[in-house]
Amino acid sequence: MITLEDCQQRDAADALRPLRALFHLPQGLIYLDGNSLGPMPLAAVARAQDVVAREWGEGLIRSWNSADWFTMPQRLGARIAPLIGAAPDQVLVTDTTSVNLYKVLFAALAMARQDQPERRVVLSERSNFPTDLYIAHSLCAAQGFTLKLLEPHEIASALGADSAVLLLTHVNYRTGAMHDMAGVSAAARQAGALMVWDLAHSAGAVPVDLLAAGADFAVGCSYKYLNGGPGAPAFLWVHPQHSARFAQPLSGWWGHAAPFAFTPDYQPAPGVARYLCGTQPILSLALLDCGLDVFDQAQALGGMAALRAKSLALSELFIALVEQQCSDFGLGLATPRASAERGSQVSLTRAHGAGGHAIMQALIARGVIGDFRAGDGAEQLDILRFGLAPLYLRFEDLWHAVDHLRQVLARGEWQQAQFQRAHAVT
Amino acid sequence: MITLEDCQQRDAADALRPLRALFHLPQGLIYLDGNSLGPMPLAAVARAQDVVAREWGEGLIRSWNSADWFTMPQRLGARIAPLIGAAPDQVLVTDTTSVNLYKVLFAALAMARQDQPERRVVLSERSNFPTDLYIAHSLCAAQGFTLKLLEPHEIASALGADSAVLLLTHVNYRTGAMHDMAGVSAAARQAGALMVWDLAHSAGAVPVDLLAAGADFAVGCSYKYLNGGPGAPAFLWVHPQHSARFAQPLSGWWGHAAPFAFTPDYQPAPGVARYLCGTQPILSLALLDCGLDVFDQAQALGGMAALRAKSLALSELFIALVEQQCSDFGLGLATPRASAERGSQVSLTRAHGAGGHAIMQALIARGVIGDFRAGDGAEQLDILRFGLAPLYLRFEDLWHAVDHLRQVLARGEWQQAQFQRAHAVT
Repeated sequence: MITLEDCQQRDAADALRPLRALFHLPQGLIYLDGNSLGPMPLAAVARAQDVVAREWGEGLIRSWNSADWFTMPQRLGARIAPLIGAAPDQVLVTDTTSVNLYKVLFAALAMARQDQPERRVVLSERSNFPTDLYIAHSLCAAQGFTLKLLEPHEIASALGADSAVLLLTHVNYRTGAMHDMAGVSAAARQAGALMVWDLAHSAGAVPVDLLAAGADFAVGCSYKYLNGGPGAPAFLWVHPQHSARFAQPLSGWWGHAAPFAFTPDYQPAPGVARYLCGTQPILSLALLDCGLDVFDQAQALGGMAALRAKSLALSELFIALVEQQCSDFGLGLATPRASAERGSQVSLTRAHGAGGHAIMQALIARGVIGDFRAGDGAEQLDILRFGLAPLYLRFEDLWHAVDHLRQVLARGEWQQAQFQRAHAVT
Repeated sequence: MITLEDCQQRDAADALRPLRALFHLPQGLIYLDGNSLGPMPLAAVARAQDVVAREWGEGLIRSWNSADWFTMPQRLGARIAPLIGAAPDQVLVTDTTSVNLYKVLFAALAMARQDQPERRVVLSERSNFPTDLYIAHSLCAAQGFTLKLLEPHEIASALGADSAVLLLTHVNYRTGAMHDMAGVSAAARQAGALMVWDLAHSAGAVPVDLLAAGADFAVGCSYKYLNGGPGAPAFLWVHPQHSARFAQPLSGWWGHAAPFAFTPDYQPAPGVARYLCGTQPILSLALLDCGLDVFDQAQALGGMAALRAKSLALSELFIALVEQQCSDFGLGLATPRASAERGSQVSLTRAHGAGGHAIMQALIARGVIGDFRAGDGAEQLDILRFGLAPLYLRFEDLWHAVDHLRQVLARGEWQQAQFQRAHAVT
C-alpha cells in the first residue's frame, strides 16, 4: 500500500527537487501535460521583456548583430546537442518539426536514389505521429517511393533489400512506448537503409545518443520536454558525413553560404547550416534559452541519467498508484511495463467511446491536467495521457493526481453533463 | 530652398502624426530602416508579458483554445487581408516568406503542368530578392521548368506561349522601384501565365489590391512595414479559385482537415488553411497583433491612401533634400523619380567600392539608421537604402537625416578608419 507519506518521503530525498523552483507552476494545478506543452521557466518573463523592449525596441535592426539574433539557430542547436548525443555544430533550431522532417527526408530520399536506386521503400510505424506520416506520404508520392506502415514488431523483418529509409518516432505520442534507438538504428544500417528519428517526445525526456546509435538524420520539438514555449521552433540534426552532401529543397537565403552577398545563385552553406531557410521568429527562439538553462542546472545534479532515473521512478509510481486506487474502473495500461521500453509518459486506456474524454474533462476540472487522444474504435483504444516530466513534478503530485482520478471514477463525476458535452481539441 | 521650418510646418499639418506616438523610437535616433525591421509598437511590451506570463505561464496547454492560439494564422491573416486587397478568409500568417513561396510556387507549377503542360518557363526579375530566386531555382530544377531572369523592361515581351509563371517582387528591395501590379498581372494573365507576387516591401507600405489585379498567389513579410517584430511569421494569399485545388507539399498536420482526428492519411483542409504545416511560434505571432493595431488606427485617419500620400511626400522630400544638400558628393538616385514607380524607400547610389559602406557606418554613428547593399561591381552600383515609413516618420526627421549625410560627406567622416573597417552584414 503506497501512501501519501511514502511519496512525500521520496520527494524529500529527490536530488532533482530544486529544479522545480525554476518553473512557474500555477497554484492548485497538477500539470501532467508537459509532453504537449512544457510549463514556463520563471526566467522567461524577464527574457521576453528584454528581447522585446531592449533588443527590438532599443536595438532595432542593430540587434541582428549586437544581440546575436543571426546565430541563434546554431547557438541553440549547440545547446541541444548534448541532450541528443550530437556534436554542437551538427544541430540547428529552426522552423517547425514538420518542415524540418520535410528537409531531412527529402535529403535522405535523394541520397537513397543516388546511392542505391533499387531501394524504393520507406518504412514507418502505423501509429507514428500523423504529421510525420503526412510529410512522408507527400514526399514518397512525389519522388516515386512507397511508404509502408508497420506495427513495431514487424519492423525488423520488414527491413530488406528494397528499404531506402526507416522513419520512426523514438517515443510514441499515444502510448509512450520507446524504441531501442541503438538496436533499431543498427538493424536499419545492417539492412542498408538510412535511419531518420523524430525526437519530439524524447529530447529532454530520455537519454538519446544519435552518434553512438549511428543514425543518419533526426528532427525534434522544443516546446514539450525542453520547455521552449508555445510553438518554439524545432530542431534538426544531420550526421556530419551527410551534411555537406545534398542541397535541401527549401533553399532560402539563411542557408546560403553568404546570405548577405545577395548573389542571384544559391550556394549552400557548409555543414548543417544549409538546412536553414528563411528569417526565424526571434522572440520565440530566444525563450528556448530559458528552457535550456534549466538543463544546465540539471547537469550539475546528474544530467539526463538522473532525469531518466526520476522519470522512471515517477512512471512506475503512477502505474502502481493507478493499480492500487483505480483497479475497478475499467482502465487499462497502454504504456509498456518494462522500463526500458517506456518514454516519460503513462497512457491509460479506456474502451472507445466509454467516456474517456469526459473522464479527462472531469480531471481537468479538478486541476489535474492531462490530455485525451481518441482511438479509432477498431484497433486503437481511447487514451488518457499523462506526461511525467522529471524536471518539475513531485512524487506527491502523482499521489494527488491518481486520487483525483479515483474520485472522478468512483463518484461518476465524468457522467455529469458538462464533462460529457465538452469537446477536446488538444 | 527647403528649410527645417518648412519640414516642421508639414509635420504640424500631418493628419497621420498621432500614429508616431504608438511606437517606441529610441531617443536621438532617426530610424530609416523600417523596410528591414519595423520599430516596436509600444503595446508590444505588455502583449509579450501577457502571452508569456498569463497565456503560457498560467494557461498552459489550455491556451491553445482559451487564448485562441490555434486560430492565430487565420485571424492575423484576416487582419492583413484589407491591406493587400484580399478577402479575410484568403490569407494566412505562418512560417517564413521563403517557405511560403515554396508552397505557392509549388502549387503554381503543379497547376501549370496539369493545365498547360507545354508551358515550362518561369519568369522572374534578375534583381529580385535572392531568396525568391533560390527557391524558384530549386523548384524549377526539381520539376523540369526553366527559370528565366529578366530586366524589368524585358518582362512584357518575354511573356509568351511557353510562360508558366511570372514571379515578381512588387517593390524591389535594392532600388525601391515598384511594378505596376495591375498592368503586369493583366499582361501575365493575357499571356496565359500564373502571377505570383512577393509583397515583402509592399504590405503596409503601398496600396495593394490582389483581387482587383487578378493575381494568383502572393507571399509577404510581416516584420518590415507591418512592424510585427524580428522574424515575425510571414503571410501568404491564394486566389480562392485555386485554394482548394492542390495539396501543398509541406503536408503537415496543421493543414489537415481535422488535425486532432490524428488519422494516418492526409486530408487537406478546405480553402487556404491547407497551406498551414506545423505548429507556429505563438509568441512571435502574437506580437504582430500590435503592429496591425496601428493600421486599425491609421484606418480612421485615411488608411492606406493617406499612408501612401505621406509616403510619397516623404520620399519626394528626401530626394529634394539630397539634391539640395548633397549634390556635390558623388551620390546618385536608384529609386525612380516618377512617384507611381516608387515604393516607400529611397535608395542612393555610390560607385562600387567608393566608400558607400563607410558612409552608412558614419551616418549610423550619428544616429541615422539606414542600411547598405553592395552592388556586384559590374552592372550594379552600391546602394544606401533609406526606408521612409509613413506611420512614424516626421518630415523634420528627413531634414536632419540629410543634414547628417551632408556633414558626413562634407567633413569626410566616412574616411575615418573605424568606418572604413566596419563590416555590414545586414
